[in-house]
Amino acid sequence: MLAEAEATAPAARATSAAELHFELGLLNSEYGHALDNERYDDWLDLFHEECVYRVVPRENHLLGLPVALIHCESKGMLKDRVAAARDSTMAEPRTLRHFIGNIRVLEAGAAEVRAEANVLIVQTMINRMTEILLSGFYLDRLVRVDGRLRLRERLCIYDSLLIPTSLVAPV
Amino acid sequence: MLAEAEATAPAARATSAAELHFELGLLNSEYGHALDNERYDDWLDLFHEECVYRVVPRENHLLGLPVALIHCESKGMLKDRVAAARDSTMAEPRTLRHFIGNIRVLEAGAAEVRAEANVLIVQTMINRMTEILLSGFYLDRLVRVDGRLRLRERLCIYDSLLIPTSLVAPV
Amino acid sequence: MLAEAEATAPAARATSAAELHFELGLLNSEYGHALDNERYDDWLDLFHEECVYRVVPRENHLLGLPVALIHCESKGMLKDRVAAARDSTMAEPRTLRHFIGNIRVLEAGAAEVRAEANVLIVQTMINRMTEILLSGFYLDRLVRVDGRLRLRERLCIYDSLLIPTSLVAPV
Repeated sequence: MLAEAEATAPAARATSAAELHFELGLLNSEYGHALDNERYDDWLDLFHEECVYRVVPRENHLLGLPVALIHCESKGMLKDRVAAARDSTMAEPRTLRHFIGNIRVLEAGAAEVRAEANVLIVQTMINRMTEILLSGFYLDRLVRVDGRLRLRERLCIYDSLLIPTSLVAPV
Repeated sequence: MLAEAEATAPAARATSAAELHFELGLLNSEYGHALDNERYDDWLDLFHEECVYRVVPRENHLLGLPVALIHCESKGMLKDRVAAARDSTMAEPRTLRHFIGNIRVLEAGAAEVRAEANVLIVQTMINRMTEILLSGFYLDRLVRVDGRLRLRERLCIYDSLLIPTSLVAPV
Repeated sequence: MLAEAEATAPAARATSAAELHFELGLLNSEYGHALDNERYDDWLDLFHEECVYRVVPRENHLLGLPVALIHCESKGMLKDRVAAARDSTMAEPRTLRHFIGNIRVLEAGAAEVRAEANVLIVQTMINRMTEILLSGFYLDRLVRVDGRLRLRERLCIYDSLLIPTSLVAPV
């Protein structure tokens, strides 16, 4: 979307509201595609080198409680999580499918973009019907690196305190 | 999206098909965000002063039957509905999550826009898994006020005659 | 979107990435609308005269196995499928609702566009709650005919080996 020459451009100013929205949609599509297909290296590439990734129940988020289901505060921790997902023999095989919509730009600043989006993840296990894994929303801080938006922080804030099966892979 | 100077512009002519689509997407995202977060004043702001809001089973809609689950034909009635949702002690706490997609412009007229979109709403109650509340579609008539699209009429036409729990809040 | 004079234009070159994405979104919305409302002639119109339409379990697709739930390799076969869906007295009446998102362009070539999108289909049967029929993704090859994108091939690759009820209508 953006030429390499724009690598030093601010996070949002270079683009119109519609273009920024389009870019966020692409990023979220790549994000879902990477996880749905267990392409974890592609997933890692969507994060900035200095990043935070947390999966938090909505109630804890609203109350400002720190407890999270997944908590990574560096790309190294993300890589550890990916290694765990790849090596896990405890978890039954399953297919995730992400549906990300209702994208909203909260702030299109010069240094970073803040945005959110609703997410529904369904999962299918062998010989089981497809079922809802979780609903919730992503709350993001993004920066532009080499012309492309990258996640500096993604919180996945999910609605239910219950998750049907153990969450091994990132969501 | 549109400068204040365009406040008197017709509903759709000022924008291209892609821009109108983008605006409808933003409106639907704001709509979902307002209800998912019980920000009912934000929800009211999306309607024109003279408005109709109805929640109707698809079968009744197809047969032209007037019975609706929720029927409001003025902004005052919308406010009453909001007050009921806020005061309700009968209903268990729950979190709704809207997924609105497949937006289609039916008519981009000078005076108003007619559009529709599919909607899936999931709900999460305390200590329950996330479940489908309803699927259906929004059927809208929109007008432009001060440069922004506002709902003159929104019908929420849902597919099932059954709803898992009493519907107190608007959808 | 495109004037008739552009009928001979290549599949993707005439448009920007955002415009192509917008067109794919419109096509998918029309696709979902046609099937959700059993407007099968509208559905047929979205396919090129020479077309392939297959509904395949993900596992078979990944393994390269040929077995498909639905297999049509000409528009005539699509019409047969539509006739079967219309005439079926075996199947209980149901309403489908498509949610298509996470659109990704895989290749925007001069001759054809390759794209994919996640799909969630929920179904509602009389006196039943709305339930998930299937999740999966569409894998498409598209060509431009008279300025409009048409499906040369659509694979509907679904995640579960189980489908809650017999699949009569196309998805």
